[in-house]
Amino acid sequence: MALLVVGSIALDSVETPFDKIDEALGGSATYISLAASYFSSPVELVGVVGSDFPKNYIEMLEEHNVDLEGMQIIEGEKTFRWGGKYHYDLNVRDTLFTELNAFQNFNPVLPDRYKKARYVCLGNIDPILQMKVLDQVENPQLVVCDTMNLWINTMKQDLLKLLKSVNVFILNDSEARMLTEEPNLIKAAKLIRQMGPEILIIKKGEHGALLFTQDTIFSAPAYPMEIIFDPTGAGDSFAGGFIGYLHQTRELSPENIKRAVIYGSTMASFCVEKFSTKGLEDLSYLQIQDRFREFKKLSSFDETI
Amino acid sequence: MALLVVGSIALDSVETPFDKIDEALGGSATYISLAASYFSSPVELVGVVGSDFPKNYIEMLEEHNVDLEGMQIIEGEKTFRWGGKYHYDLNVRDTLFTELNAFQNFNPVLPDRYKKARYVCLGNIDPILQMKVLDQVENPQLVVCDTMNLWINTMKQDLLKLLKSVNVFILNDSEARMLTEEPNLIKAAKLIRQMGPEILIIKKGEHGALLFTQDTIFSAPAYPMEIIFDPTGAGDSFAGGFIGYLHQTRELSPENIKRAVIYGSTMASFCVEKFSTKGLEDLSYLQIQDRFREFKKLSSFDETI
Repeated sequence: MALLVVGSIALDSVETPFDKIDEALGGSATYISLAASYFSSPVELVGVVGSDFPKNYIEMLEEHNVDLEGMQIIEGEKTFRWGGKYHYDLNVRDTLFTELNAFQNFNPVLPDRYKKARYVCLGNIDPILQMKVLDQVENPQLVVCDTMNLWINTMKQDLLKLLKSVNVFILNDSEARMLTEEPNLIKAAKLIRQMGPEILIIKKGEHGALLFTQDTIFSAPAYPMEIIFDPTGAGDSFAGGFIGYLHQTRELSPENIKRAVIYGSTMASFCVEKFSTKGLEDLSYLQIQDRFREFKKLSSFDETI
Repeated sequence: MALLVVGSIALDSVETPFDKIDEALGGSATYISLAASYFSSPVELVGVVGSDFPKNYIEMLEEHNVDLEGMQIIEGEKTFRWGGKYHYDLNVRDTLFTELNAFQNFNPVLPDRYKKARYVCLGNIDPILQMKVLDQVENPQLVVCDTMNLWINTMKQDLLKLLKSVNVFILNDSEARMLTEEPNLIKAAKLIRQMGPEILIIKKGEHGALLFTQDTIFSAPAYPMEIIFDPTGAGDSFAGGFIGYLHQTRELSPENIKRAVIYGSTMASFCVEKFSTKGLEDLSYLQIQDRFREFKKLSSFDETI
């Protein structure tokens, strides 16, 4: 019962008001796998890189028990590159460049043993690729899917088709509004759940996240941070912590899904404390538990004096 | 140990995507007093109206045990009027007109017995008037102050002076950013607490509210609402529920202040369900308790399976 992750693997060049980094490790599959690796092991990764992909990144992922048999290395190609710049308020980012490179003709083929995976995380890549991967999984028990505004704008029909096979859909508030053309998030959530996913998570950045199931709405707080070094990968880390915890505990009750949302938020909060994947590379069990308990403290109150 | 409330009393003409209402009861002092009246009684109101102020509004306030001795009625003057229009997403509102009328030369003079009040809520009016009221209170124990972007823009120095005498300051997220010129809310909160108020509440509308005390940050969820009929008065109702509960329980521990934030959120959620003050006019104890418990359910999770 392995956890399978598909998504992008990238070399990111990121500029924030605090610092600048060139060709650092990035990509949705990378962040998801690292975040999930603290809960479940091994994580089976499906993705593609070029022959220029640095060896030390491969070693670091392997040290986190990420299974890279499903990572294609295309000889003579370059790895997918993304460049972005965050502004002072960090909610706005400009994409400076996108070089698809090896990603352009990516045709995900799962190693045979990956096909037995029961937990599947479809990280943010185009919905046709997400579907191609899902189609190869023989008997998935829980399918988590993340996306972004780009695919809602350019591949909405493919995304809608995919959503019929998805159990948990994760997107942010502006994407939820965009997908449904409904400004009220609670109404938008209802509409999205009617598209297929029985469980919906709307991420709201500095305002936390909302979980919608059949009978429950759960509001998760955001971790209060004075400095966010690099928001890149926060959403992916959320998805990784979320599915990693569920895969570890193998319980899909509403109560456990709430905890998974908090573990997702926990991993996202570690992610943004450092540049690139650095915030996810060297965490201890105790650090994760401590932060989880801080989330508890942050949002709990007693009913009576 | 009475609860004293000062603020505006208005006739509001409001247009939303759902309906339109003309010259309905409004004003910060009105909403605060009504919301607080479910917890403490009597509420001593300080404000001003013209001789055109409808009798049935006076009767309704008196039925809620709001003490109107401090409400000046200026003969021959008209009551303060405000007109606003909300757009489809309800986060944007245009002020269509503001007629100060009786409010223009308002000189708040407290009846002698009001001066003994120990809990004071300075509703949203200009900071010089707020200070004038506070100066007349002999020995205030808890001073709660609300404000708005207008006063931050036009009377910042007066507001800063007032803040030195305030225990609890309530404002919304964009106002907090405006006041401090700091985009990060956690940093902005630190800066505002250095201006005087030991307790700070940042309201975030559909994203809930944040409470900052010396050692605690508390994140209160927003009540999930599919339809918000009229957002007018939500912030005032929050302040009224907050101080009303504290005045009722007379306990200023961090744990009780958290509960007060939830009671504030509870009253705000009732407020926006109907036009004008209608949502606050006919609530039962049970309705309030039920909604409080819904807030608890919305944000609580267990630490372990």
